[in-house]
Amino acid sequence: MSATFELNKEYLELIKDAIESGKDNFLKDQLSDLHQADIAEIIDQLNLEDAKYLFKIIPNEKAAETLLELDEEVREKLLSSFTSQEIAVKIDDMDTDDATDIISELHEEKKQEVLSFLEDQKQATDIADLLTYDEDTAGGLMAKELIKVKHDWTVARCIREMRKQAEDISNIYTIYVVDDNDTLIGTLPLKKLLFNPASLRSTIKDVYVENVISAKVYQDVEEVAKMMEKYDLVVLPVVDDDNKLLGRITIDDVVDIIKEEAEKDYQMASGISEKVTTADSVWLLSRARIPWLVIGMVGGILGSQVIERYENQIQIHPELAFFIPLIAAMGGNAGVQSSAIVVQGLANKTIDFQSITSKLLKELLVGLINGLLCSLLILSYTVVFNQNINLALTAGVSLLTVVIYASFFGTLIPLLLDKYKIDPAVATGPFITTMNDVVGIFIYFFIGRLMYGI
Amino acid sequence: MSATFELNKEYLELIKDAIESGKDNFLKDQLSDLHQADIAEIIDQLNLEDAKYLFKIIPNEKAAETLLELDEEVREKLLSSFTSQEIAVKIDDMDTDDATDIISELHEEKKQEVLSFLEDQKQATDIADLLTYDEDTAGGLMAKELIKVKHDWTVARCIREMRKQAEDISNIYTIYVVDDNDTLIGTLPLKKLLFNPASLRSTIKDVYVENVISAKVYQDVEEVAKMMEKYDLVVLPVVDDDNKLLGRITIDDVVDIIKEEAEKDYQMASGISEKVTTADSVWLLSRARIPWLVIGMVGGILGSQVIERYENQIQIHPELAFFIPLIAAMGGNAGVQSSAIVVQGLANKTIDFQSITSKLLKELLVGLINGLLCSLLILSYTVVFNQNINLALTAGVSLLTVVIYASFFGTLIPLLLDKYKIDPAVATGPFITTMNDVVGIFIYFFIGRLMYGI
Repeated sequence: MSATFELNKEYLELIKDAIESGKDNFLKDQLSDLHQADIAEIIDQLNLEDAKYLFKIIPNEKAAETLLELDEEVREKLLSSFTSQEIAVKIDDMDTDDATDIISELHEEKKQEVLSFLEDQKQATDIADLLTYDEDTAGGLMAKELIKVKHDWTVARCIREMRKQAEDISNIYTIYVVDDNDTLIGTLPLKKLLFNPASLRSTIKDVYVENVISAKVYQDVEEVAKMMEKYDLVVLPVVDDDNKLLGRITIDDVVDIIKEEAEKDYQMASGISEKVTTADSVWLLSRARIPWLVIGMVGGILGSQVIERYENQIQIHPELAFFIPLIAAMGGNAGVQSSAIVVQGLANKTIDFQSITSKLLKELLVGLINGLLCSLLILSYTVVFNQNINLALTAGVSLLTVVIYASFFGTLIPLLLDKYKIDPAVATGPFITTMNDVVGIFIYFFIGRLMYGI
Repeated sequence: MSATFELNKEYLELIKDAIESGKDNFLKDQLSDLHQADIAEIIDQLNLEDAKYLFKIIPNEKAAETLLELDEEVREKLLSSFTSQEIAVKIDDMDTDDATDIISELHEEKKQEVLSFLEDQKQATDIADLLTYDEDTAGGLMAKELIKVKHDWTVARCIREMRKQAEDISNIYTIYVVDDNDTLIGTLPLKKLLFNPASLRSTIKDVYVENVISAKVYQDVEEVAKMMEKYDLVVLPVVDDDNKLLGRITIDDVVDIIKEEAEKDYQMASGISEKVTTADSVWLLSRARIPWLVIGMVGGILGSQVIERYENQIQIHPELAFFIPLIAAMGGNAGVQSSAIVVQGLANKTIDFQSITSKLLKELLVGLINGLLCSLLILSYTVVFNQNINLALTAGVSLLTVVIYASFFGTLIPLLLDKYKIDPAVATGPFITTMNDVVGIFIYFFIGRLMYGI
């Protein structure tokens, strides 16, 4: 498996046919060549019966790992077809963080049953403990497996103890050094330990590295993700308020959070209020979109009331209606552009000591430049093609005003929301579009009356 | 530094004052407690003179690392104030991938000069080689530092050789096993090597693990990122077409790519065509937004031409103008919602063997549900508040049509673009909004004429 696998329709059909005709040897051959993440991709595409059939054929050491890689929904269905004992067997070999993730998806009753069937009692206690943490905190993300040595051990003893501890651990990332109270005081680089046989008799105290970055167990996962990103960490120890070492978080669990965070802002900006994918049900897909559509409706109705106030003017000068959609759209576009930049800046916590005032001034300038350009375009177009100076001036002046206004508020609103600790992502997209629509139309007709002198 | 550092205005002032009054000892004290990423954050906020002053005070072992963490612009300015020899000293201790990143930012002439000043000739050759790869490929991301053992060595020899190789390497992630032709054939788990002293006389051949996932040197960085994400890899070896081991990529370099990818789609959907932040210049911020604003203008002008065709009808029934912005906005909103879900699905390569037809049918259903709901809302509103059945029917029927239409095309267009290998992210946001605006207005007036019988 040196090359990566990409699942295609033909291969999926091949597997389905083999399941149909019970070609177990062929399937075993195929599965032994595949990575658990690839096997999971195949199972995600099967119906429950076929999924159960194929899952039973997976070589034992890969079965638990495959379970972890499955789509949450598929895994839930598959697990509910297993007895508690069967689940316990799979979970026994997993890292505690992964095992906790899986058990946390079960019903309360089944949770206890699975825990009671676990052979490794330490594993059971660790998982029961991890289940108590909120999944949005460092505690909910951490695993208990780690290599921990005491500051007063000799290097030789350290290596002996590590041999014992390492049995449970699939990857050695870092060796943590603790004092007599289990307080985290530093780390021991593997290199120092391995390639320096002269130091076998020295004490850990003399060779360890102080200053280790750690997360508090109750810290929000987003903060944890930012910390690991900023300090380029592969693994991060988790401590309690007394700095007692509780567990560790690895980067692979955090990559998903970093990505989801960025994607969530995009979805919110696009007016989707729940995390959905094309594979979700029609009902869920509809429900996720309704809130913003209703906000759009309210904006549209407010807009209609603004226009209604100018009904007489439209009757006399129906050409005033021509640029209603242009003005509304441009207000929305300019506003969304401004707010997207601010929202991403806030999400990334780009350090930035410019005051709100100087940011707004800058944005006013950007609005002025772009507004002037657009305004000149529409002015020239209207003069040439409609040969109506009043209409040209109305369109030009109101477009300039609207673009400046929209850039300004597109910047201000997310900054204000952030100041009052409201997620600024909610302000982008539909909300700012809608508000700028309504205000834009008002500005347009207000200026129209001035220009036409009516 | 167990807690994380957060830069604030007061602290920054403190540092600036200390620089002003030349309190070097105080500054040294502060810097020795800070992580290089934190020092870089401070320097990013200083003017060039102060930045140079502070940089000189950084303890030697942190200076190179700090350089890596700086904002690209700040680093460029700082570097241009250094002589080639000064840069070479900083670079000598860096990993080859980081050193290459920094050298690649220099002018051609200075590049060669810095390379010639490097003390470590192997380092210079490695960097010169890495400079030849495109920065968007695996080769442009990889480092040369890795631990490599031959399949026919004994474990004892392996440990001896590793001691030599490990000198250059800050972190040991994985030990790669190669054959006589330097072809990558597997990995050697550290655990097997360390905690199994009985095996000192066995040959690597007998203990190594076959099957290692690798990237080709010319593979796109986005593919590399997806691979590391999917297979939960912390480090990924890079090979050429003959599977010869060339280097390795670590996850910290890839995290940034994963994040930027997700953010790029968001910015494009918000109509920003270049990667910008609030800190960029007014000119750059304006330029990044102009292309989409112009597209919005074109859409607005097309919309105005549609309305112009109905000028007479508006003169007779000016209330027809009321719902122009509502219809345009709802077409845009529904279209953006649909396309955002498709674009994210395509970006994540969520495996999905539904045919385009079945996806579209699903989306039509979602459009029908949401369209009916919105349509009923506007119908009731208009009957109650405008007491105009013709207008109510026009608004209701056209809104239903527009929401269905917009959902359908919002899904179809990104799928089609993807099929023809065009980045579907360009289709979202302003483009789909604009198209749906124009078509929405056309549908509205078309239905209006039918309903009014004019």
